Amino acid sequence: MNDDESGLLHDFGKWLESLAPFDPDSNHYHQNRTGEDNADAQMKRQVMGREVVIAITKGKLDFGPWEQIFYGEFDGGWLKRVLVKLIGEKQKWIDGSTSLLDCWSLMQ
Amino acid sequence: MNDDESGLLHDFGKWLESLAPFDPDSNHYHQNRTGEDNADAQMKRQVMGREVVIAITKGKLDFGPWEQIFYGEFDGGWLKRVLVKLIGEKQKWIDGSTSLLDCWSLMQ
Amino acid sequence: MNDDESGLLHDFGKWLESLAPFDPDSNHYHQNRTGEDNADAQMKRQVMGREVVIAITKGKLDFGPWEQIFYGEFDGGWLKRVLVKLIGEKQKWIDGSTSLLDCWSLMQ
Repeated sequence: MNDDESGLLHDFGKWLESLAPFDPDSNHYHQNRTGEDNADAQMKRQVMGREVVIAITKGKLDFGPWEQIFYGEFDGGWLKRVLVKLIGEKQKWIDGSTSLLDCWSLMQ
Repeated sequence: MNDDESGLLHDFGKWLESLAPFDPDSNHYHQNRTGEDNADAQMKRQVMGREVVIAITKGKLDFGPWEQIFYGEFDGGWLKRVLVKLIGEKQKWIDGSTSLLDCWSLMQ
Repeated sequence: MNDDESGLLHDFGKWLESLAPFDPDSNHYHQNRTGEDNADAQMKRQVMGREVVIAITKGKLDFGPWEQIFYGEFDGGWLKRVLVKLIGEKQKWIDGSTSLLDCWSLMQ
């Protein structure tokens, strides 16, 4: 989750590459001995996060003033699935419960 | 979330500066071409996390033995908002439900 | 959370050591002036995450195709506690509610 600004997105790509550079050499990343070459993507993913938990207030995602959710692709070539789940109460279950129990959203 | 020890807080500041140094030069961080100079703060924030999910047990935040929540300021000059939400059940809704469904707290 | 592959686990250890090397020298990590020598472990933990939030679908942890949960030990010598909490509804509370409100699991 960060600011939606093209310069910043470029900076994140460059920064992640400096922290965990792509390198198919299996002396650098042992995982690459399996025939894969995406060990760096696992590390970039670790820094950027696997899931976000976002509050919902009055039916809207309760972001900070500039926050947006981004999906970062560090490997490619794989079909991806985005899972969104909501935690909360349906008002019809117990009248008025929505105002007592806040709703939650989780995306992975 | 980490140990509340002044030396460690100093170490985190130094470590984050080494991972993502402040640099107003827009050749280093393209975001700075927008007139901002806080691209490094976005990266420090990425490492330190945007939100924490903390279990509540018997009405108290269920931390590890030395865990504390910290707010890290890497940019400054902006008014900030802390959002705390609870997930759980009020005992009066369904008697005894609190012991079945644990309560949750999320802070961003 | 990452791929369960021994080469990758080796790569993560090496990568974390490069980001936050172990160093008992208290000039490097001020925390070590307290007599501890685990400041690096606090930083490794920060990168790897303290907790994971995992969706449950049809009674199973809803992972990606290769995802597994790992516990990383960067310090040692301490007794650890794993806390798992579930968020959801018991079907007997309100009939059919499980299909409306998804269940959640959080591990720290």
